[in-house]
Amino acid sequence: MSDPVREVLVDCPAWVGEVVDWGRDYSRDEDRMALAIRLAGHNVDRGTGGPFGAAIFERSGRLVSVGVNSVVRLANCTLHAEMVAFMLAQRRVGSFTLAAPGFDEHELFTSCEPCAMCLGATLWSGVVRVVYAAGGADARELGFDEGPVFAESHAYLRERGIALEGGLLREEARKVLARYRDLAGPVYNRRPEV
Amino acid sequence: MSDPVREVLVDCPAWVGEVVDWGRDYSRDEDRMALAIRLAGHNVDRGTGGPFGAAIFERSGRLVSVGVNSVVRLANCTLHAEMVAFMLAQRRVGSFTLAAPGFDEHELFTSCEPCAMCLGATLWSGVVRVVYAAGGADARELGFDEGPVFAESHAYLRERGIALEGGLLREEARKVLARYRDLAGPVYNRRPEV
Repeated sequence: MSDPVREVLVDCPAWVGEVVDWGRDYSRDEDRMALAIRLAGHNVDRGTGGPFGAAIFERSGRLVSVGVNSVVRLANCTLHAEMVAFMLAQRRVGSFTLAAPGFDEHELFTSCEPCAMCLGATLWSGVVRVVYAAGGADARELGFDEGPVFAESHAYLRERGIALEGGLLREEARKVLARYRDLAGPVYNRRPEV
Repeated sequence: MSDPVREVLVDCPAWVGEVVDWGRDYSRDEDRMALAIRLAGHNVDRGTGGPFGAAIFERSGRLVSVGVNSVVRLANCTLHAEMVAFMLAQRRVGSFTLAAPGFDEHELFTSCEPCAMCLGATLWSGVVRVVYAAGGADARELGFDEGPVFAESHAYLRERGIALEGGLLREEARKVLARYRDLAGPVYNRRPEV
């Protein structure tokens, strides 16, 4: 076996720099979600990962970070789009929580309902609102597992002040999922028959 | 606000290189857990993070990776000890799953029961066995939240072939938690009153 590893670099594909307009105003929910879905689409078309994209915004409409699924590209099971977006946002603001005193409220927009891991991270991240396009069932249609997510899981977050809303631009997100399926993109961690 | 961030480096504190014997045989469960707890203890004593440590082993007894809680040190809510260990292990073996064909089976040993995020990541990681020392209730005693983890969550992993066992060297792990509490270490993402 190779030598022990002491560090890992997490990044976005280089094309992200070309397709994201950081200075734009993202006051509208639809514009926020369109960005998340556009990132998912580019990730498929450019062959850099799974059909999932995410972005974090200040409530004011400022874009803080983006993420795309990087599991296969970086050989790292934790790098779902939401996780990458959390990491880059917290690095940018210099805090392990986006709910630090003096910060504007932060919101996560993601092209697909968060899996169990990402839902847990959402709680730790400090975002106060999560909006997703496609649902967990849409991802499962492709063979992706969502892990142990129950109605009680969403309730747990809601009780702690995090709003969760699904279905915005769902059909657009489903088109990206369908494109990935048509291209026979790898379904890492495929949902097993249980 | 500062410029957008495109990458994040995830690493272990430098002292990890001094205290881990990578060549040692870790055939015994107790030795594996003692390492996870020792890492947690060093993390507290050296002031590099929360009172949690983890390590991943091949079933044969070979140590693959270690992780310590790095949430505050790296300003990153996702960097629980288990997550760092998953990332470093997958980087080392060059695969997003530790269950790739030809690999020995991998096992996660962690000083405390995995939170919701880490439990989700466990499912994606490819480990087939998780052993933890302290329980979620022990962490909650300090004010740490574990997130939406239910009996059904553990059952979900078990149904997919992952063994989960708690309580090994629990008192040793609880001593580290108590030391952290006595030092008034920061309880990031403190469990709110609900």
